[in-house]
Amino acid sequence: MQPNMSPAKPRPADNNSHGLYGQDILSVKQFTPPVLDYIFSVSEEMRTLVERFGSADLLQGKIMTNLFYEPSTRTSSSFMAAMQRLGGQVIPINSVQYSSVSKGESLADTVRTLECYADVIVIRHYEAGAAAEAAHWASKPIINAGDGVGEHPTQALLDAYTIQRELGRIDDLTVGMLGDLRFGRTVHSLTRLLLNRNVTFRFISPRLLRMPEEIRDEVTEADGTFTEHEDLEEVIGEVDVLYVTRVQKERFTDLGDYEKVKGAYIISPETLTRARQEMVVMHPLPRVGEITYEVDNDPRAAYFRQMQNGLYIRMALLATVLGRA
Amino acid sequence: MQPNMSPAKPRPADNNSHGLYGQDILSVKQFTPPVLDYIFSVSEEMRTLVERFGSADLLQGKIMTNLFYEPSTRTSSSFMAAMQRLGGQVIPINSVQYSSVSKGESLADTVRTLECYADVIVIRHYEAGAAAEAAHWASKPIINAGDGVGEHPTQALLDAYTIQRELGRIDDLTVGMLGDLRFGRTVHSLTRLLLNRNVTFRFISPRLLRMPEEIRDEVTEADGTFTEHEDLEEVIGEVDVLYVTRVQKERFTDLGDYEKVKGAYIISPETLTRARQEMVVMHPLPRVGEITYEVDNDPRAAYFRQMQNGLYIRMALLATVLGRA
Amino acid sequence: MQPNMSPAKPRPADNNSHGLYGQDILSVKQFTPPVLDYIFSVSEEMRTLVERFGSADLLQGKIMTNLFYEPSTRTSSSFMAAMQRLGGQVIPINSVQYSSVSKGESLADTVRTLECYADVIVIRHYEAGAAAEAAHWASKPIINAGDGVGEHPTQALLDAYTIQRELGRIDDLTVGMLGDLRFGRTVHSLTRLLLNRNVTFRFISPRLLRMPEEIRDEVTEADGTFTEHEDLEEVIGEVDVLYVTRVQKERFTDLGDYEKVKGAYIISPETLTRARQEMVVMHPLPRVGEITYEVDNDPRAAYFRQMQNGLYIRMALLATVLGRA
Repeated sequence: MQPNMSPAKPRPADNNSHGLYGQDILSVKQFTPPVLDYIFSVSEEMRTLVERFGSADLLQGKIMTNLFYEPSTRTSSSFMAAMQRLGGQVIPINSVQYSSVSKGESLADTVRTLECYADVIVIRHYEAGAAAEAAHWASKPIINAGDGVGEHPTQALLDAYTIQRELGRIDDLTVGMLGDLRFGRTVHSLTRLLLNRNVTFRFISPRLLRMPEEIRDEVTEADGTFTEHEDLEEVIGEVDVLYVTRVQKERFTDLGDYEKVKGAYIISPETLTRARQEMVVMHPLPRVGEITYEVDNDPRAAYFRQMQNGLYIRMALLATVLGRA
Repeated sequence: MQPNMSPAKPRPADNNSHGLYGQDILSVKQFTPPVLDYIFSVSEEMRTLVERFGSADLLQGKIMTNLFYEPSTRTSSSFMAAMQRLGGQVIPINSVQYSSVSKGESLADTVRTLECYADVIVIRHYEAGAAAEAAHWASKPIINAGDGVGEHPTQALLDAYTIQRELGRIDDLTVGMLGDLRFGRTVHSLTRLLLNRNVTFRFISPRLLRMPEEIRDEVTEADGTFTEHEDLEEVIGEVDVLYVTRVQKERFTDLGDYEKVKGAYIISPETLTRARQEMVVMHPLPRVGEITYEVDNDPRAAYFRQMQNGLYIRMALLATVLGRA
Repeated sequence: MQPNMSPAKPRPADNNSHGLYGQDILSVKQFTPPVLDYIFSVSEEMRTLVERFGSADLLQGKIMTNLFYEPSTRTSSSFMAAMQRLGGQVIPINSVQYSSVSKGESLADTVRTLECYADVIVIRHYEAGAAAEAAHWASKPIINAGDGVGEHPTQALLDAYTIQRELGRIDDLTVGMLGDLRFGRTVHSLTRLLLNRNVTFRFISPRLLRMPEEIRDEVTEADGTFTEHEDLEEVIGEVDVLYVTRVQKERFTDLGDYEKVKGAYIISPETLTRARQEMVVMHPLPRVGEITYEVDNDPRAAYFRQMQNGLYIRMALLATVLGRA
């Protein structure tokens, strides 16, 4: 399955330079440096628009369907707000377990039905590849809002955009990723997005939750640099970005192993005394104890600004694929 | 219970010729030929409007409540999109099991409460007669989106409208209905809508799932013609419309009976080699195997256009009962 | 916890006289007589607006989040309609059990995330104090839509507004409250709102479900007058308002006790023969038998008008806290 196989979709070069009009957003692989620059610049415009006017009518009369096969209040609310702030409307389908889908309908038929009503479909699915499958059948743009262990490209975009906003660049950085690097979809996507940008990666995790070989190989192939650590102390003083994820108890078969590591991955004000002044702490949220509340008041704590950036990124994507940016 | 007993509703003749302003949409019996013509012509206008502009502001400031006592993503999304494309807003109530209704509130009280907030109420209920009951108590228009084994008038409308669009007429046709004709609400309603139009019906089903006597009697009383068949082959070559419905395993007490018949009711490209070139294949969707995916590319496969037509029909109905068409 | 502790919120005196712009609505204690007068007068304007035009665009471009930790179709629909009638949009979060909250996220983080997307958050929670907790963390206005055994200030407002509308005043009245006075949040809040207004309270309930001592003490401390009764007949002839609530079977450990009292608290046309002509019967709804349907046609039955008033009160509050009234 490849992105944008549906012949009915406009060809990239048809009427814009960024090539996203009418297209699907499926994978971080689509975000070449010029595309990324474009999305960031539209996101900045969206920020200005929201801060000055609250909303606009760029997408008035347009309808987005939120097709969520698994619940994600945060992501669905963020897309919903993005569409609404641009004057568009939303059809929320959050309980797919109760819908015709559970009566055995194929994803292909569901998508072809919903595109009779909507102009763009945001899909969240528990299976990797589901978004690309939906895009294959749909003639309207599909936006991947997370498909199982697959991709979550808008999260990666907002993460990269946050780094850009906070530090002024996404190149030539030392980026620490902490916690569950094995199952954490967000750190996989962000790593891929930062390849070929002279980023030095510091992967800090329990041995059991190491960054997968596949991702490490991709870094190497891109002539990137990474090191692996079990102890945050080894790198806390040098990272520009500390991207924290949650270490879930359920990942461990031996609870003793869990008890041994969990304390080592909690960020507190004390942790940050050894960090650089110009660095940022990020987290995809929700957090459950891995960053203490006392950290929130530190100017380096960027995770709520990161949340806010998600709104601007999603506004930018919606405006772009619908041909209004 | 009769439609439109609420004295607060405007009388049909008050300010329009079609008589639907402020009225309830409860039963196909309301759709006399002139009313049907009117709805079809407004639906055509809605099609033009959507194709050219995407949306309009005919119902700006109006609110529709989607009161769904049983889930139906497809129908609720279709009504929601219809309202939104006309500039209106929607209050979705999809989980009635969690609401005050489940605390023992009567339908009468629920409807009288909701009409304090909304301008029109779309109701889906598991009990036949529920929509008429709601309409009895409400002073705002009620639209029946399916009430148990009762009616689903907007589905019948979009089915008839699809035939009109595809074949240019709904009179003087040979219409085949295939599958579960006993429990299939859609084939009952469509049959009733096509009475007195010189339609020849071919009812094709397993013996266990025959068209109910009540409907057959109605055809006869209207001087209509029907024949019954177990084998599609007997009529495949002569029908102008083949309306396919799903034969559900659960309907059979003897699974052997099910295994015997199921293959006979699957439509494939091979089936269609024996069908007329000018005919159309319809299905209310979702399908689960009863029409193979290969059929989708046949120009006679009308079921996704049928879906799309549902949007226009519902836009037309909303605009009409709210006095904007 | 106190209302409005968040330093980011505008100070009351900043740009209006009523002091509600940018503020939270947490408790009836906020509604001093001038504030109440102000809200009532805006509610009247909202009534005129809805009756004449259906809706307005006062809150166009604004987004409200409905954050409901426990289901309440009636209240969430009422807030949703209020926002939509003012041209605003809504992010409904009705199934918090499925959301990130159930993954262990704190209310503080949930609220700080959602305010990245929305301009105002309406919260319904099963725990007393939750709304104030949310308000403490949020920089955007929080509206309490009921927090457990705590408060439900918008219900109290619409109740008081209904009395004002029906009887022309909320002072110098005799107010009977009937049914479950122990657990009924609405009667607690309404009592508090009517303190210092020369109201004589008649509390009529089974012994087991008496008005709590705390509330009775507050009446006394405010130099108010109340009497307690088990028999409605003792006061039916003198009350200006009869506020009926449901006596729930589940409250009784001895079902014999329940059977003894339940009949005494059902309002029928016969009951009203002994009531004053100028009084009103109110009920927060839903009702389950405690007021018979025959009463609905009595002009003194105000409960559906009370529902309608809820829309105007909520429109007024939203417009006010968002600085458009």
